[in-house]
Amino acid sequence: MKRLFTIALVTLTFLTIVRAQSVAERLGYPRDAKLLIVHGDDLGMAHSVNTATIKAFETGLVNSGSIMVPCPWLSEIAAYARANTRADLGLHLTLTSEWTNFRWGPVSSRDRVTSLLDKDGYFYLTETEAAAHADPKQVEMEIMAQIERARALGIQPTHLDSHMGTLYQNKALFELFLRVARSQKLPVRVAKAWFARADFLPSVLSQDDVYIDRILDINPTVAPKDWAKFYSDAIRKLEPGVTEIVIHLAYDDSEMQGATSNHPDWGAAWRQRDFEFFTSDAFRKLLQENQIKLITWRELGKLIK
Amino acid sequence: MKRLFTIALVTLTFLTIVRAQSVAERLGYPRDAKLLIVHGDDLGMAHSVNTATIKAFETGLVNSGSIMVPCPWLSEIAAYARANTRADLGLHLTLTSEWTNFRWGPVSSRDRVTSLLDKDGYFYLTETEAAAHADPKQVEMEIMAQIERARALGIQPTHLDSHMGTLYQNKALFELFLRVARSQKLPVRVAKAWFARADFLPSVLSQDDVYIDRILDINPTVAPKDWAKFYSDAIRKLEPGVTEIVIHLAYDDSEMQGATSNHPDWGAAWRQRDFEFFTSDAFRKLLQENQIKLITWRELGKLIK
Repeated sequence: MKRLFTIALVTLTFLTIVRAQSVAERLGYPRDAKLLIVHGDDLGMAHSVNTATIKAFETGLVNSGSIMVPCPWLSEIAAYARANTRADLGLHLTLTSEWTNFRWGPVSSRDRVTSLLDKDGYFYLTETEAAAHADPKQVEMEIMAQIERARALGIQPTHLDSHMGTLYQNKALFELFLRVARSQKLPVRVAKAWFARADFLPSVLSQDDVYIDRILDINPTVAPKDWAKFYSDAIRKLEPGVTEIVIHLAYDDSEMQGATSNHPDWGAAWRQRDFEFFTSDAFRKLLQENQIKLITWRELGKLIK
Repeated sequence: MKRLFTIALVTLTFLTIVRAQSVAERLGYPRDAKLLIVHGDDLGMAHSVNTATIKAFETGLVNSGSIMVPCPWLSEIAAYARANTRADLGLHLTLTSEWTNFRWGPVSSRDRVTSLLDKDGYFYLTETEAAAHADPKQVEMEIMAQIERARALGIQPTHLDSHMGTLYQNKALFELFLRVARSQKLPVRVAKAWFARADFLPSVLSQDDVYIDRILDINPTVAPKDWAKFYSDAIRKLEPGVTEIVIHLAYDDSEMQGATSNHPDWGAAWRQRDFEFFTSDAFRKLLQENQIKLITWRELGKLIK
């Protein structure tokens, strides 16, 4: 009896140790490794986004991205995905259409997802409106339709995230998002650092889910002249563990200026600044000087049982 | 009895004379007047198309256009329409999605118009495929949905036409197109000169329908260097009656190059050449020298009872 108890205790201790492994360790890196995903959002939205992000992928400095299935330039990025099967491309599940001149709507049949549509028949402009009106069953139907269309076009997604964070707006939406991701055996963009601000996250996530330590992104309080400084400081101060930097790449060209004309935040010039920094030698040097290793969602996805 | 017969004969002759009036005469112009509509197609398709066409409208030399409701930049041109209520804007009813990198689909609920969708869930690439698969009831539902969405966005269309001519591909499609147009009391793009090549047209049209004499457009056999010559010759030789020149305006910029990358016909450079010619002083001079009067579909629409 005492022997059995000892075996049980040893096993439990062993399991606890296994569970306590950091994501970095589960990936085979030392616990203090600084691992980074440099992730371009919004692929498929515009030609400018596609071409700038593909150009950035070619530098090797931006190594991940996610695709908006309902957007007009999906076919262009799907062709890239078919020709570059090792690219780390996820789906940027989309339930909002935020630019007033340039809009999109659902992949599923409109009359089956009426709770997702504004008065003009497009997705809502903001994530708060979208979340307030969304019937979770219709959300699940729509995001499954987006995943199915992506796969039908030859995209093999490595991860899922949510455009403008709509699927993190409340517990019901996050639960269905995670249910869909688990059914697809795909990791979702979730960071431990978010637990404080979205307290439902830890109760919905299980130990079998794969999530990272933190997400970094720039915000409208940073002046354009301080762009490189903001990112450089963030990289110098990068903590050990897995971090994703979420960036938005495009050129400051006529198409992007038209799309984002009345909205400088995340606008054309913003995206050009992101492009300049994340394709620069300065960024490459910072990664080297700070012993930062780039990893992808593809590696993280392999941890899913 | 003889008197009654005389009255009947006079009445009949009078009616024949009335009916025999040319469209030019019905509009109040002399029979030999040269009347021209300069019409930019494909508004709403792309930012480049919208901005180039609006710029051309501002010259006064391009005076009409039509809007593709299913396309991503509809909201931008709808805002223009609301702000410019005298602009001669029709609907370019859309059942095809011809650019492989950049695509769109129906306004109506997808599962109610399955005959209009290709395997990727967009409209077919070509007008022949679209016409071959189209269930006329579903076409009617979709074009009504396009008209309703346009009106809901504040567009008051002055005329209807059909992107890539899908609705002229066979008698069944043209009949329903005309039925919808009559129900909306809107003129459709039809020219007498087409009767020879689409022999069902005269049997479907009635004397109450308003149509024009001829449509001119450039075609891929014209070399880029001969662009201005082609249009200049056509304008010098313009016959009396009502002519529409159908043109495609956009800038030869990154967005249009991306959309039309593998298809130079009606591509980015083509549209820039159209823009250059139809906003030029040379074109303005040609109109003056040849006593050509610009008219609009708005005037033609007033002839509909």
